[in-house]
Amino acid sequence: MAKSGAKRTKLSKKDYEARIPALREQLIQLQVSLKSAPFPVLLVVAGVEGSGKGVVINLLNGWLDPRGVEVFAFHPPTDEERERPPMWRYWRSLPPRGRLGIYVGSWYTEALREASVPRARREKFRHALSRIEHFERLLVADGALVVKVWLHLSKTDQGVRLKKLESSARTAWRVTADDWRSHRDYKRLDELGRTLRQATSRTGARWRVINAADERARNVAVADTLLSAFLAHHQTLAKRLAPGRRLATTPLRPEGLRRLAELPLDKRITSSAYEAKRDKWLGRLNEMIRRAAAKHRSVVFVFEGWDAAGKGGAIRRLTSAIDARDCRVIPVAKPTDEEKAHHYLWRFWRHVPRAGMVTIYDRSWYGRVLVERLEGFAREAEWRRAYAELNDFETQLEEHGIIVVKFWLHISKAEQLRRFRHREETEYKRHKINAEDWRNRRKWHQYEIAVGDMLTLTREVPWHLVAAEDKRHARLQVLKLSCRQIEAALAQG
Amino acid sequence: MAKSGAKRTKLSKKDYEARIPALREQLIQLQVSLKSAPFPVLLVVAGVEGSGKGVVINLLNGWLDPRGVEVFAFHPPTDEERERPPMWRYWRSLPPRGRLGIYVGSWYTEALREASVPRARREKFRHALSRIEHFERLLVADGALVVKVWLHLSKTDQGVRLKKLESSARTAWRVTADDWRSHRDYKRLDELGRTLRQATSRTGARWRVINAADERARNVAVADTLLSAFLAHHQTLAKRLAPGRRLATTPLRPEGLRRLAELPLDKRITSSAYEAKRDKWLGRLNEMIRRAAAKHRSVVFVFEGWDAAGKGGAIRRLTSAIDARDCRVIPVAKPTDEEKAHHYLWRFWRHVPRAGMVTIYDRSWYGRVLVERLEGFAREAEWRRAYAELNDFETQLEEHGIIVVKFWLHISKAEQLRRFRHREETEYKRHKINAEDWRNRRKWHQYEIAVGDMLTLTREVPWHLVAAEDKRHARLQVLKLSCRQIEAALAQG
Repeated sequence: MAKSGAKRTKLSKKDYEARIPALREQLIQLQVSLKSAPFPVLLVVAGVEGSGKGVVINLLNGWLDPRGVEVFAFHPPTDEERERPPMWRYWRSLPPRGRLGIYVGSWYTEALREASVPRARREKFRHALSRIEHFERLLVADGALVVKVWLHLSKTDQGVRLKKLESSARTAWRVTADDWRSHRDYKRLDELGRTLRQATSRTGARWRVINAADERARNVAVADTLLSAFLAHHQTLAKRLAPGRRLATTPLRPEGLRRLAELPLDKRITSSAYEAKRDKWLGRLNEMIRRAAAKHRSVVFVFEGWDAAGKGGAIRRLTSAIDARDCRVIPVAKPTDEEKAHHYLWRFWRHVPRAGMVTIYDRSWYGRVLVERLEGFAREAEWRRAYAELNDFETQLEEHGIIVVKFWLHISKAEQLRRFRHREETEYKRHKINAEDWRNRRKWHQYEIAVGDMLTLTREVPWHLVAAEDKRHARLQVLKLSCRQIEAALAQG
Repeated sequence: MAKSGAKRTKLSKKDYEARIPALREQLIQLQVSLKSAPFPVLLVVAGVEGSGKGVVINLLNGWLDPRGVEVFAFHPPTDEERERPPMWRYWRSLPPRGRLGIYVGSWYTEALREASVPRARREKFRHALSRIEHFERLLVADGALVVKVWLHLSKTDQGVRLKKLESSARTAWRVTADDWRSHRDYKRLDELGRTLRQATSRTGARWRVINAADERARNVAVADTLLSAFLAHHQTLAKRLAPGRRLATTPLRPEGLRRLAELPLDKRITSSAYEAKRDKWLGRLNEMIRRAAAKHRSVVFVFEGWDAAGKGGAIRRLTSAIDARDCRVIPVAKPTDEEKAHHYLWRFWRHVPRAGMVTIYDRSWYGRVLVERLEGFAREAEWRRAYAELNDFETQLEEHGIIVVKFWLHISKAEQLRRFRHREETEYKRHKINAEDWRNRRKWHQYEIAVGDMLTLTREVPWHLVAAEDKRHARLQVLKLSCRQIEAALAQG
């Protein structure tokens, strides 16, 4: 475990200058190898006030080729950021594969801010740490290299450093009243730092504590840490990414398949009964959405279902009840190349709505455990851990007050065939069907297994399973279930 | 020209219902053709209060397949938006080619807000309109279809409409005190609307005024306008985009080439003289940047120059004077596929910095009139009009208070050869040279012509022409010229 009492080493000016050229060359080599590496590097530089986080980062930035690096410092959240879950701002900063992001303080700065107020907030701090731990675990699992250094100073060394900075006209502006406040509060902050490191040191994202009393030794230690972590990672990752994918043709959990099989598909509703009820529910949904918006709560709809199950039609009915100005439909197709260069969840984080908005996903992040599982686009280890990641993603949305409504539209294999044929025969529907739809259909049973697992393993936010054999019935169900869920969510808080 | 007194037509319920199915089918067909069309469609729905802009858009949204449409309504600017030039928020909303964006009020809403205060602000309103006119002209020139409808109501009809809305419990919430205020202010607002339409009606982005007194006639007219504009555009564009590119091997303006030829390249500076001066200028630059940040002014550096002219080295010296936390280096390489699907300036608008930040472009938007001109990636008409577009882009940055510092680093053809060879011979520099560099070198003279034209035709924000034959001399020049320009800009206001 990372101890605060990191060794206090000294480095003479002569030794320092002798080491620099080689260090710089290694850093450039790192960047050259990184360019074609299948992972991003995140360097987090955190630590006590006066330890020189900014100086170290400026130095590294000068040593590196600035074209491959980006430095991120987080100022107090903007209003656009406050309207999203706390991790949104960090997601949007993530470097793509092959690039290096250097983080000053990073997500830890905000977590420490949570802890600045006594007792009552301890719970919040703990929660922020566990959120961070999840975040880093997810990045690491995806292959990212996360290097975290904590720059440490003893209380005495910190006092000496702050005084020294104040004594020179060139650096005096760096020392603020906050710095002296944190110096007086040293003991408590030191303990917080220790708690923080303890809670977030995990394989692949360990803290390295570096004593910053000697500036030269500190600089070299940070660069060394980055270099050796990179080399080690580059080697092990090559092994870990070796192929070995295997389509899972057996369910992880049998319950899901059973649930699908037991869903009665014979419910029908006449056209006139449908129209009478539809308007009632559309009106009610409109009211619910407006009530949610008044409370600054967003609603996210997720539509999954068989090809031709009627997702488009159901979405169209839904949007007719919502003011188009506050609503966005996001069809999820193949990722763009920018999206492909990031974690698979990045493209969904990008579109997390502002407060009070409605976002409708026509297909969604569940592609990870459906098409990507079945087509082998995701390795087995990847789609297996995705269930937990998707649960966690949706939990973060919900914790922020976003109401997440999820549908699986279910039809029989025979009904799909009828609809495919109908599409092929109808002029203005022909664009809706292609060879891929027929290909997917041949894998019906494998898909059934994947759907069953999905329904069973991602229900922290529950799924609505909708019988869609009859379109009118399905559309009405979607409206009703949406109303009820939103109403219940609003009643709770 | 668009007159307010658009014809007041009536449509019976029966006739209306008879027309809907065909309209809807045509709209879906529009979307199917649009999918593979090489342009985006922007539908702007503006007009007087109570004319039903929201209703029309909701209706259209229901008729269209929601998967290919996005609706944009602009609420008061967020702080992230206020920190950028006014058009930034609109740029970031632009649909890519093949998609339809529907704008409620759009950029016109904000412009009308500028006009809400008397005399003193008239100038601001005029300016906002000319900015919009430029914006739309640029989109249209790029092939976008911009359809603008203005929903008109006479004062009497407006009063009737507002009362009718108020009388029903279902719609009463739509009528606000603001609506009645604008009703009392009808005459002035009507004139403003006329001024606005007059100033922004141009080929390719004409206003169509639609009388909204009869709701059914209004709905059909909006859909019809969109459909017929689309059909006409789809046909003419196919012709306009026909090939016919031609490399311009003669300069548009001879002065530029002369300016390049006359630049003395023999200035040298010794290593010791350089080091002595460098630190002075680095310190001064650091101070300037901090003074700019204190005034919430961003600085944007643009580095252009021959391959191997030393852009990377100059940038590295520059960044060493800037706090890495406030600085971002953006290397401009090939656009991503998302970027390719938008106007060529979109990717640069994306990265416009927040207030008080420094952004350094390593190559830039000038690729449009350099590599894209020479390689034929841009058609002749495209790169020819780019000079004005680039001037306009930079003017918008400057008007917002951003300081734009532009460099062309110049070396001789012989010096480039020496540097290329040196790169090939030096282990850790080899990654910096490839076949493309050699290919570009063979087109030296054509590039000279393009550079000369660029220097001559894009100097609304002036260029710094830097002799870079001696690297130390060039780096010092970059520091000095940056300091002086920032200092002068801060002195002005």
